[in-house]
Amino acid sequence: MLVRCSSSERGGQQRSNAAVRVNGAAHRATLQVGAALETSINETLAELSAPLLAPAPATDGRERSRQNIPTEKQAEDPFRQAQIVEGGVRYQQTVVVRSYEVGPDRTATLETILNLLQETALNHVWMSGLLGDGFGATHGMIKSNLIWVVSRMHVQVDHYPLWGDVLEIDTWVGSSGKNGMRRDWLIRGRGSGNIYVRATSTWVMMNKNTRRLSKMPEEVRGEISPWFIDRHAIREEATEKIIKLDSNAKHVDSDLKTIPDQFLQHHQLSSIILEYRKECGSSDVVQSICQPDEDSVSPSENVSMVRGPSLLPEVINGHHSLAGALQQWPTKYTHLLQLKAGDVHEEIVRGRTTWKKKL
Amino acid sequence: MLVRCSSSERGGQQRSNAAVRVNGAAHRATLQVGAALETSINETLAELSAPLLAPAPATDGRERSRQNIPTEKQAEDPFRQAQIVEGGVRYQQTVVVRSYEVGPDRTATLETILNLLQETALNHVWMSGLLGDGFGATHGMIKSNLIWVVSRMHVQVDHYPLWGDVLEIDTWVGSSGKNGMRRDWLIRGRGSGNIYVRATSTWVMMNKNTRRLSKMPEEVRGEISPWFIDRHAIREEATEKIIKLDSNAKHVDSDLKTIPDQFLQHHQLSSIILEYRKECGSSDVVQSICQPDEDSVSPSENVSMVRGPSLLPEVINGHHSLAGALQQWPTKYTHLLQLKAGDVHEEIVRGRTTWKKKL
Repeated sequence: MLVRCSSSERGGQQRSNAAVRVNGAAHRATLQVGAALETSINETLAELSAPLLAPAPATDGRERSRQNIPTEKQAEDPFRQAQIVEGGVRYQQTVVVRSYEVGPDRTATLETILNLLQETALNHVWMSGLLGDGFGATHGMIKSNLIWVVSRMHVQVDHYPLWGDVLEIDTWVGSSGKNGMRRDWLIRGRGSGNIYVRATSTWVMMNKNTRRLSKMPEEVRGEISPWFIDRHAIREEATEKIIKLDSNAKHVDSDLKTIPDQFLQHHQLSSIILEYRKECGSSDVVQSICQPDEDSVSPSENVSMVRGPSLLPEVINGHHSLAGALQQWPTKYTHLLQLKAGDVHEEIVRGRTTWKKKL
Repeated sequence: MLVRCSSSERGGQQRSNAAVRVNGAAHRATLQVGAALETSINETLAELSAPLLAPAPATDGRERSRQNIPTEKQAEDPFRQAQIVEGGVRYQQTVVVRSYEVGPDRTATLETILNLLQETALNHVWMSGLLGDGFGATHGMIKSNLIWVVSRMHVQVDHYPLWGDVLEIDTWVGSSGKNGMRRDWLIRGRGSGNIYVRATSTWVMMNKNTRRLSKMPEEVRGEISPWFIDRHAIREEATEKIIKLDSNAKHVDSDLKTIPDQFLQHHQLSSIILEYRKECGSSDVVQSICQPDEDSVSPSENVSMVRGPSLLPEVINGHHSLAGALQQWPTKYTHLLQLKAGDVHEEIVRGRTTWKKKL
């Protein structure tokens, strides 16, 4: 089954099969796709697609400006409980995990974590006094009609924070090749200092009108490079290439639920890498594909107990099912979200996920 | 079209047509329904169903306790930027509207507003030292297996706050009849003091196991009544009764989009009243029904300009369409969300909404 992503902004009647949207509605579009996917149980690619593409500002004339954008560098933002530290290169913000940001086990959802990454990144640029439009574009970028888009994201969750936990989120930027920028994050428990989440991302610039990637103009490099530091939240040995899946993959099209429910009951995501290839618009039809690494089964799991005929269906399917806990599941998966338009199914995002048993 | 609400917690295979769920998964269940509805464009009942039913704590043994629940009254919560004022009866919290809490017009969504109401209500009880389980139940309630459920909610949005706005949220409680509690809220801009949102709600107690409403035990009354004050965020003259809709209503079943897209482009919700009748479970199939008050058309709108043949389809359907802005729309609607199980379609929630033109 496919999910059609529609948007109130564009009118429900309108549908387009264009592979790449070329107007300013990409912001809403991206969020719509995220929301649609989110209703599927598979939270893997779902929640991740939403906040990671840097949204283009609305161009429909109804835009209202963000309040109080500073044109000068700020050292402190008392209401956001944020400060710029380490001579200006590191942004730090304190947040408390809220009641509506957690799942049924009272730990922060992955969506919450990604939201906080987006929020602190934008606030960092905001406090740096570089902000032109509220979406992280600098003044130089706005002059050249450029916006930020994320091309790669790697999030590693060591522990999911609990409802009520006080978190300290640090973020900073560095260089990434000739035309890119790296942004890293660390999320720590304020009391313990324990690291909950590490994340790194790569950003490139896109022309807002042509939707083509752009070189980094010298003016923009001059604006942002003074903030660059060479520090890595995740030590990535060599960047693993994510293979391209096709329709021969094990799970295709299944209502975007490419990770089995039983697996999700007993496992949680510990690492996700996403490589963005294409924009995705509000009326695009998308499809999710997933391939387990069959050789990634956790060696500690006992298979022999599981698939015998002695378990009643009630036990196997029940809320407190042991089957899901005991069944042998791969712990690594490759993912693909692609457009379902015409004969060529263009890739939107490739992903790799790693899962571990819930405690 | 119907929306089937499934949950990873219960396993995708399981489906139940029971009108009322009787296990502890109601929390997740309610949220699932909210999420499913939310993907429809109609944001009326959708976003509202999610946070308003007081969720029951998970009973599956995987529950983890909330951090640092105080057993004594606290006057200040520095990390949440909250304090108890006015001799202990009023809770006040400062929040900043975040990047992911706004819609494409950069104003806070109704979902965000409702989330903040839920969050501040729970934090109020938390700081009062009454909290037993994290979901607002007092120690006395836990002894009697009671949980809070909301029976009525009235939210009035005077202005939608902008991304970056610093808000001050006040909340307090009062008596409501013999067995109920009223909770009110005011959301103001911190700088201006302007009121953005007023809200009032009625809460009653439900037995967690039988799922039947309960009288308020004397012990619980003793715990909470010292906090009651007689102050109303919304001055409600007489409580308007919401009529029950049936399948003769104008909009039935239409993919849960009972408010037309074109209307939503140019109007925003200014008031909503919800009356809860039944719990709704994770695998329940629900249906949305809506009836406009045909006599509630805003008198200032000019009808004659609209439906003539001179407008090209592009203009009528386009993003910048004037048609939606000029068309004559009713501004008041009656809503019903009901279960679609068996022959009797039990009511989940009745609603009344009032809308106004966007600025």
